[in-house]
Amino acid sequence: MGDDCAILRPRLGEDLVMTTDLLLENVHFRRRWHPAQSVGHRALARGLSDLAAMGARPVAAYLSLALPGDLIGKWLEGFLDGWLRLAAEYTVPLAGGDTSEAPRSGRTPGLAIADVVLVGAVPRGRALLRSGAHSGDMLYVSGKLGGSTVELRALRQRNPQMPVLGSRDLRAHPQLFPQPRIPVGRRLLDRRIATAAIDISDGLSTDLHHLCEASGLGAVVDRDAVPLAPGASFMDAISGGEDYELLFTTGRKSLLRSVGGATVYPIGRMTSETGVVEIRSADGSRSPMPAGGWEHFARSTR
Amino acid sequence: MGDDCAILRPRLGEDLVMTTDLLLENVHFRRRWHPAQSVGHRALARGLSDLAAMGARPVAAYLSLALPGDLIGKWLEGFLDGWLRLAAEYTVPLAGGDTSEAPRSGRTPGLAIADVVLVGAVPRGRALLRSGAHSGDMLYVSGKLGGSTVELRALRQRNPQMPVLGSRDLRAHPQLFPQPRIPVGRRLLDRRIATAAIDISDGLSTDLHHLCEASGLGAVVDRDAVPLAPGASFMDAISGGEDYELLFTTGRKSLLRSVGGATVYPIGRMTSETGVVEIRSADGSRSPMPAGGWEHFARSTR
Repeated sequence: MGDDCAILRPRLGEDLVMTTDLLLENVHFRRRWHPAQSVGHRALARGLSDLAAMGARPVAAYLSLALPGDLIGKWLEGFLDGWLRLAAEYTVPLAGGDTSEAPRSGRTPGLAIADVVLVGAVPRGRALLRSGAHSGDMLYVSGKLGGSTVELRALRQRNPQMPVLGSRDLRAHPQLFPQPRIPVGRRLLDRRIATAAIDISDGLSTDLHHLCEASGLGAVVDRDAVPLAPGASFMDAISGGEDYELLFTTGRKSLLRSVGGATVYPIGRMTSETGVVEIRSADGSRSPMPAGGWEHFARSTR
Repeated sequence: MGDDCAILRPRLGEDLVMTTDLLLENVHFRRRWHPAQSVGHRALARGLSDLAAMGARPVAAYLSLALPGDLIGKWLEGFLDGWLRLAAEYTVPLAGGDTSEAPRSGRTPGLAIADVVLVGAVPRGRALLRSGAHSGDMLYVSGKLGGSTVELRALRQRNPQMPVLGSRDLRAHPQLFPQPRIPVGRRLLDRRIATAAIDISDGLSTDLHHLCEASGLGAVVDRDAVPLAPGASFMDAISGGEDYELLFTTGRKSLLRSVGGATVYPIGRMTSETGVVEIRSADGSRSPMPAGGWEHFARSTR
């Protein structure tokens, strides 16, 4: 830190992977709904989830914050608390960044902006890609889906004055503090389990379409096999975003039950029908998986 | 592109360097003052200037844009035009990024935000640092200073309706289209000329203080030796930001006149008096270099 750039030296035989994210107030979070700790946690979790999808181990994080004056102080402390707790869990040093005041638009106070860059490392040439799936591969998810949508709905209805949360409260709000699937991704890579992977940040439907497109394949998802988070509907599960589970394909014939400490769920299979993504009901009938899914929190919250 | 992360594989014997910048409307530019092409150019130039200060060759750029609705269209085209022209000059592929809509604050339209990440490469262990200067080293700048402040003053007074500029107009506005000193930085590194370097993004005064602090030294600057851009006062030159020249130190005794195609100017010398940065007048009297200098465009433009 302190120089014009950070220096990154991968270990011999490693590639570096990098992801960059803009986290915007009123798009990715609302200050009335999300406690500052959750915003800080999620700012880091989002990037870590991208690393997890590549099978990477985290190496370093960079955080630039632009905050309106009234968020500098207690809110910023909460944000950093949320960030640093998660960073400690996955040993992600904060290698650079800065804090500045957010721009105003006339008399309207500015909105908070966080710019997050994460760097990870993978064995050379072995990063998990979206493009590696084969026809006939089994399709898995690393956890239950739709929880984030359920939580968001609750937040919107209750519109609570969010307290600053103590460390004990965090487990009671798993959707406010989603766990990036770093151990799952690393295990998928180390044991050469996955042929392709992506993180579910825009909803199963959208991200499965991305994976199919990159691999030049199609997929069939069994409706009853999609694991639902408590309170989530099937539509929540396939079109809700920000669950941060991994979606991966594997050529293994034997059923996987657990990977890197997480229960994994087989939800379907890859097919050779390029771009055709279908849902199969219990009676065997098929319908197209609705494309698009969750585009952005923004659409529903404005 | 297309995966959750970009993969970076340095050549054998190279380190990667990375810099990340938030470019904010009303802080780093104003849409009434700066033509879109200039904003796009400067978004890239700022990061390239950081690479130049490390002696790096550019490898890849990542751009995330959040724009209010009315800037999507013609303004965005201008922005990308300015970015891509400069990228072509220094062979910087756009390796990732996205465009989204900027958040609104109530009825007020959003402000434009650009998140720029640049990756470069240097021979392993040889990146130019701020901390490498020695007492007695000569201090140089890679060009005339204060031009950006002069241009900004003119923009503020005239408050012109900025036209979309043609390629011929670009040379007539060097401050709207500053050239990052990539060839200078690479030459300083290749020929082992520089012991330390920094880019002048916050003004000579501030950045010289940074260099002195990192090297644990002081400096004396000869007032009459500081090269002034046309129309710039001495104060403009030492406290104006965004000139994007390099400030470097060298142990070479013979006078340098040109490095990497740029005229360089000796402006003083490093001393062993830690943290003492002084200006020496023609009569030999010394006064402290005003610290702080230019903090942000924001301060003067709000």
